[in-house]
Amino acid sequence: MLPVTVLEQAGRELLDWQASGMSVMEISHRSAAFMSVAQTAEADLRALLAIPDRYKVLFLQGGATLQFAAIPLNLAKADATLAYINTGVWSQKAIAEARRYNPVTVVADSAAEKFMDVPAARHFDLAEGTPYLHYTANETIGGTEFPYIPDSGDTPLVADMSSTLLSRPLDVSRFGLIYAGAQKNIGPSGLTVVIVREDLIGHSRPELPAVMNYALQAAEGSMANTPPTYAWYLAGLVFKWLKAEGGLAVIGERNRQKAQRLYDYIDGSGYYQSPVASHCRSWMNVPFRLADATLEGCFTQEAAAAGLTNLEGHRSVGGMRASIYNAMPLAGIDALVDFMRGFAARYG
Amino acid sequence: MLPVTVLEQAGRELLDWQASGMSVMEISHRSAAFMSVAQTAEADLRALLAIPDRYKVLFLQGGATLQFAAIPLNLAKADATLAYINTGVWSQKAIAEARRYNPVTVVADSAAEKFMDVPAARHFDLAEGTPYLHYTANETIGGTEFPYIPDSGDTPLVADMSSTLLSRPLDVSRFGLIYAGAQKNIGPSGLTVVIVREDLIGHSRPELPAVMNYALQAAEGSMANTPPTYAWYLAGLVFKWLKAEGGLAVIGERNRQKAQRLYDYIDGSGYYQSPVASHCRSWMNVPFRLADATLEGCFTQEAAAAGLTNLEGHRSVGGMRASIYNAMPLAGIDALVDFMRGFAARYG
Repeated sequence: MLPVTVLEQAGRELLDWQASGMSVMEISHRSAAFMSVAQTAEADLRALLAIPDRYKVLFLQGGATLQFAAIPLNLAKADATLAYINTGVWSQKAIAEARRYNPVTVVADSAAEKFMDVPAARHFDLAEGTPYLHYTANETIGGTEFPYIPDSGDTPLVADMSSTLLSRPLDVSRFGLIYAGAQKNIGPSGLTVVIVREDLIGHSRPELPAVMNYALQAAEGSMANTPPTYAWYLAGLVFKWLKAEGGLAVIGERNRQKAQRLYDYIDGSGYYQSPVASHCRSWMNVPFRLADATLEGCFTQEAAAAGLTNLEGHRSVGGMRASIYNAMPLAGIDALVDFMRGFAARYG
Repeated sequence: MLPVTVLEQAGRELLDWQASGMSVMEISHRSAAFMSVAQTAEADLRALLAIPDRYKVLFLQGGATLQFAAIPLNLAKADATLAYINTGVWSQKAIAEARRYNPVTVVADSAAEKFMDVPAARHFDLAEGTPYLHYTANETIGGTEFPYIPDSGDTPLVADMSSTLLSRPLDVSRFGLIYAGAQKNIGPSGLTVVIVREDLIGHSRPELPAVMNYALQAAEGSMANTPPTYAWYLAGLVFKWLKAEGGLAVIGERNRQKAQRLYDYIDGSGYYQSPVASHCRSWMNVPFRLADATLEGCFTQEAAAAGLTNLEGHRSVGGMRASIYNAMPLAGIDALVDFMRGFAARYG
């Protein structure tokens, strides 16, 4: 979901961007006009997150999944043992991909809790020379979210923030590297944002493909190859929208309220149930179950008829799931709760 | 440059696609609605190029440059010697990237001709077990183009067709693999099309990142990770436009005429000059020089004032360059020739 005002602006500019007579899509990524789009987007993202100067901001392709490989190949020597926290499907994918390139130690794991909780340990004492500790800040399928930033001591902390980046303020200085696929809170799919502390780059392995090389992309302004220009432009419009809304403190408070309103209703409904431990429930992805699981099909059908779509849980876990990213207004939560209340009254 | 009718349709559908109340950008790549977009785009591309059933068609990210790495990692064992033809900047980049992973033999080279010609040999006798022969069908910077498909015997032929795919009919059955960044004749940047003979895939190396794995992406319908959905949708609109225009025979004849009109004028002008051997001049990228090179800045300035942009040659070679991809109409060539004639009259 993208903010309506962003889509409206994109629509107005699609055929004639800044009186150029051309679409942004048609402008060379090397042109002064696109360079300005690119630089403004980076500056706005830096301002929103107060990213310190010692971090590079990269606009890449391939999604979080390509970063699962890029991170070890950029940050670790081949014989170093990597540290990962396993909190669900996305952690597992990151770990499996890292194991192509390095030994991996899983230093904390919530598999025993069926990934309905996050590890209790907030501090990790890691072996000297550990290249980084990786965790998944938000598991979109399980619906968990770390309510704190793990403390990895002197070991750089690496976070998959695909679902939470820009959903609230963040202390970037706590991290070695943050990455996010754009399609949740940033823009359309096909763009990946990487924020990396500059002292960590420049030590990549020779087998790293050039376009995945952080040092090269940083030196080339993310244009070592042709970037996804239109997605970059749209991300820039989203950054402007976030600034106009008041920045991440405002957005974060709104997201907190949205999530609380939905979880409060679920917990008090006597009909719906959240499977996730209450202290680590995601603000972005809210899985829930019906008292009678055989009514799930009926629920999604009636919801769709009421204009509420994409409520099926991921096929691997079933149940329902509401995705309530930045672009979802509080009124959208109210509409969902109203529908859920009516459904529970009819069938409960 | 994209066809105006494609941009108009995209503009009409941006906020409300197929009466869904949503943008295509907002629809899950797993939804039935997007699956239909994806499958229709593939079917239309297959129809346009008459792609045999034994070929897989993939819609990926990362551009041709990521394919420079993906191709050896997918198609070759680590100790196999790869065969490449070197015809310019893009060949050289492909060769440099392949050398990260394999020994490479350059079996033909036009460096001695300063890349203003293509190798005379049309047939290549390659050592048994050579995984493939790679060539760059069109060099965008030098402005050369192979006027024939090299004959590699039983060795699979691999071609970077970023600038020529869909510019004319093509006998896909002559190739093992064809790849193309989308931003020339297919759609916006951020999408890469790979057409690969299915018997060549499934033998990749363990160090290949998952999203670059052709067999995995073929099995998953190019959705092993979230694809660039909006770029894929736009490519689909371009394929529909190509079909509506009459298909690649019509487009190819139009492109031949466009190129011939421009080269004929240059050759007969007595003022401009094409540096490329006449038998291998690109239909897509037309470099040319002025009789007085000191007037280049003046030329681009006056051209821009006349609405003719992007005429600077690549910074590595200088001079002028007209890019005349599918979306450029014959009238665009006439406008350029008119301007060039006037400029030559004023300054010649």
